[in-house]
Amino acid sequence: MSNVVSSPLYAAIDLGSNSFHMLVVRHVYGSIQTIAKIKRKVRLAAGLNEHNELSIEAMQRGWDCLSLFAERLQDISTDNIRIVGTATLRTATNIDVFLAKASEILGKDIEVISGEEEAETIYKGVAHTSGGQGRRLVVDIGGASTELIIGEGFEAKALTSLKMGCVTWLENFFKDRQLNAANFDNAINAAKNAIRPILDNYKDIGWDACVGASGTVQAIQEIMLAQGMDELITLKKLKRLQKQAMLADHLEELDIEGLTFERALVFPSGLSILIAVFELFSIESMTLAGGALREGLVYDMADDLRCNDIRARTINSIQARFQIDADYSEQVANVAQRLINQCSNCWISERQGSDLMIAAAKLHELGLSIDFKKGGEHGSYLLRNLDLPGFTRAQKRLLADMVQRYRDQLTPMPEQHAISTINGVRALRLLRLAVLLTHRRNPELEPEFNLENQQDSLTLSIPSQWLEENPLTSAELEIEANRQSDLGWPLTINAK
Amino acid sequence: MSNVVSSPLYAAIDLGSNSFHMLVVRHVYGSIQTIAKIKRKVRLAAGLNEHNELSIEAMQRGWDCLSLFAERLQDISTDNIRIVGTATLRTATNIDVFLAKASEILGKDIEVISGEEEAETIYKGVAHTSGGQGRRLVVDIGGASTELIIGEGFEAKALTSLKMGCVTWLENFFKDRQLNAANFDNAINAAKNAIRPILDNYKDIGWDACVGASGTVQAIQEIMLAQGMDELITLKKLKRLQKQAMLADHLEELDIEGLTFERALVFPSGLSILIAVFELFSIESMTLAGGALREGLVYDMADDLRCNDIRARTINSIQARFQIDADYSEQVANVAQRLINQCSNCWISERQGSDLMIAAAKLHELGLSIDFKKGGEHGSYLLRNLDLPGFTRAQKRLLADMVQRYRDQLTPMPEQHAISTINGVRALRLLRLAVLLTHRRNPELEPEFNLENQQDSLTLSIPSQWLEENPLTSAELEIEANRQSDLGWPLTINAK
Repeated sequence: MSNVVSSPLYAAIDLGSNSFHMLVVRHVYGSIQTIAKIKRKVRLAAGLNEHNELSIEAMQRGWDCLSLFAERLQDISTDNIRIVGTATLRTATNIDVFLAKASEILGKDIEVISGEEEAETIYKGVAHTSGGQGRRLVVDIGGASTELIIGEGFEAKALTSLKMGCVTWLENFFKDRQLNAANFDNAINAAKNAIRPILDNYKDIGWDACVGASGTVQAIQEIMLAQGMDELITLKKLKRLQKQAMLADHLEELDIEGLTFERALVFPSGLSILIAVFELFSIESMTLAGGALREGLVYDMADDLRCNDIRARTINSIQARFQIDADYSEQVANVAQRLINQCSNCWISERQGSDLMIAAAKLHELGLSIDFKKGGEHGSYLLRNLDLPGFTRAQKRLLADMVQRYRDQLTPMPEQHAISTINGVRALRLLRLAVLLTHRRNPELEPEFNLENQQDSLTLSIPSQWLEENPLTSAELEIEANRQSDLGWPLTINAK
Repeated sequence: MSNVVSSPLYAAIDLGSNSFHMLVVRHVYGSIQTIAKIKRKVRLAAGLNEHNELSIEAMQRGWDCLSLFAERLQDISTDNIRIVGTATLRTATNIDVFLAKASEILGKDIEVISGEEEAETIYKGVAHTSGGQGRRLVVDIGGASTELIIGEGFEAKALTSLKMGCVTWLENFFKDRQLNAANFDNAINAAKNAIRPILDNYKDIGWDACVGASGTVQAIQEIMLAQGMDELITLKKLKRLQKQAMLADHLEELDIEGLTFERALVFPSGLSILIAVFELFSIESMTLAGGALREGLVYDMADDLRCNDIRARTINSIQARFQIDADYSEQVANVAQRLINQCSNCWISERQGSDLMIAAAKLHELGLSIDFKKGGEHGSYLLRNLDLPGFTRAQKRLLADMVQRYRDQLTPMPEQHAISTINGVRALRLLRLAVLLTHRRNPELEPEFNLENQQDSLTLSIPSQWLEENPLTSAELEIEANRQSDLGWPLTINAK
């Protein structure tokens, strides 16, 4: 174990236009474990005057913050540290003054990265933490810049950084702090104008899915969730939030459920930019990425974490970290897959439904790492709280709900938004059968089963000799037939 | 990791007089992880007639149960299986009939162990799962036998198995199902008569602590906890339960909060035997062991788990299983120990108080294995639910309460019964300081601190140069002084 517990620390510091962030992590079995996270609202962008000179007060706020970071940084090998400055530091004309003292405080040089480098790093952070296949459009709205990237796997195909952010748009379009239609219109139109030059090129390249990264999008998703909406960001929901915002005359009176005090000031400006992006690119829906700039920096220092199937990397890491019996999990996943294949075409009609069922199969014994008793409940607790790169919040929740019910008593599935309700139930039913059919934990001892369905009535046929030779499983399958049927999901076990 | 996930399975089957149990485990980093637990109430003892012949019906119940167990057993290496029969199988005259078929079903011979062997194995199970130093008196009240053992470490010094159990005492003294004083008196006196022959010898050997094992004692503790009492079993509490039982005239009307239907029938008889043990041995209090016969069997198959300090073995295993930074934990524990030593004599007046604080220090980052965010809460969840051999239920709870509060916001400690309230608070205060003083995670970078106390007012002195060089920790220590003081626990940070 010594290789794990003494694994080196890595740090990424991001000197943003609104906040400075420090992230300290270590690598554990192919995944990133956060050791410390420190954030200070330095409001650097607010210290730029009309000549793009950074005020000495703003610099001092920055230096004070870096002194705090420096204390932790001393204990981390220099090679394992990345410190980057973004938009405001790119813009400020008197940046040398700030950097000289900042580097002295930190004991390491700060890289002021170009907009393109920023976009590239953000893309790496997204690629390392988000699942899904195909081409993705990534949108990251920062304090003083917005990055738009198209990429596939780990490769970015188009990178753009625009000088537009939630802090600058606040100053430009909501300076009077009025939340009226005119201000919103101006902000949205200006954002469209900023984006328009790249529009055709991006549309030509095309994308399959759209992902939002970092603070602005995260805050908007949190509001949606607090208001009981699901996690998918759509234009309709954004417009609803805009209407809610316009109920207040003044920014200071803004009262939106789920909006934190900290984000309130830059909420209308950030929302305006996001609406512009949705309208111009005709985006249907957007999910939230698991990481962005800082994650790009820390993952980039560890080449061994590069893996094209993020979900597989996550599952392997969780299996290793929590001592899951990987061979057995694979067996359950295989049986689950065969059960799906035996059902009539498209019984689980979404690709996501079967993918998540297979993921649940590979993780279903997670809770045994805590205790056999209430194993499902413990697994559910872990899945709800672990960082699972490659899975969105709703997907994590569904995994947790399935794993909670993998054995014993069967309770109805709670409402979920990852896949359709019916597919959620179907996935759970097959998972439970796969677990029962593999109780011997040895593929050679599985029965030759056959599953048929008529709508939602399932008939599982198993050789009678096998049932006789396996009385415990046989009894459990009978109980399972009752449990599923009692919930209105007919299941018959048929000795053939 | 392959050595862990493919680690072999071990099974222990115990053919008891009331129930048959099967326990399947594997070894994970020096600890036992339960993979399956199956229990069937076979009521073998009830099938004995006056000539000690086992009825064919009782045998059949036993064989049916073993057929279920057999299915699982096939996949476990024969060397890793122990199957033992106890009191009823020792007593039955026609046992060969039962054993012949049973062995055939199981594919492995059943060892009918002597009372002394049973006592010895129970003691091993207790020693492997219970903390504490010195000599212990172990009491295990089974269905048809009661084992009394005195031992120290892993060595038993006196072993006795008496032909008295909760099932036999039910038949002998509560046959009319009346819960009156006469029946209880008779049951208690008969139990005393059964024990009396070994009394002097046991008193001569002596013991420091008393531990109860297995079903009867566990059920009684569960009732106490359900009724809001603490976990320590005392004669006073047992008498209270007897009074509650006598409120019902008839066994079938027994209605005691926390008593499960399953245990109700043998509750008055088990209680009578335990009262007799308490009175005869003048026992002040008894705690519940973490294991008994089955645990003795599975631990016995793994010599490498033999370790004289059960708590240390548990902590090491948890550190390895959840990738805790062991070096850093050791540093925090050392600083915590030095803080205790610097306080006036006996500021934490119980040995248990400082021991549990050190254990909490070694485990405080447990929750980071789930997520940095809410790390304390996750650690608390794990500690409440993990099996922690060497720690009683109340001690686990206190560890969880301390770990939950190791950093950030400080909330009052909830009520706990492991140590005195004041010592619980003091232990938490020192743990938090130890964490703050070791933020650099390197013993060479610790300050030369000095802690003084006037009653509950603490003054922590730290060289001013160190405070200047460590502004982040410095700021956090100031915040901590406010947090502790706000809860009425004055703390001053003094730059010296």
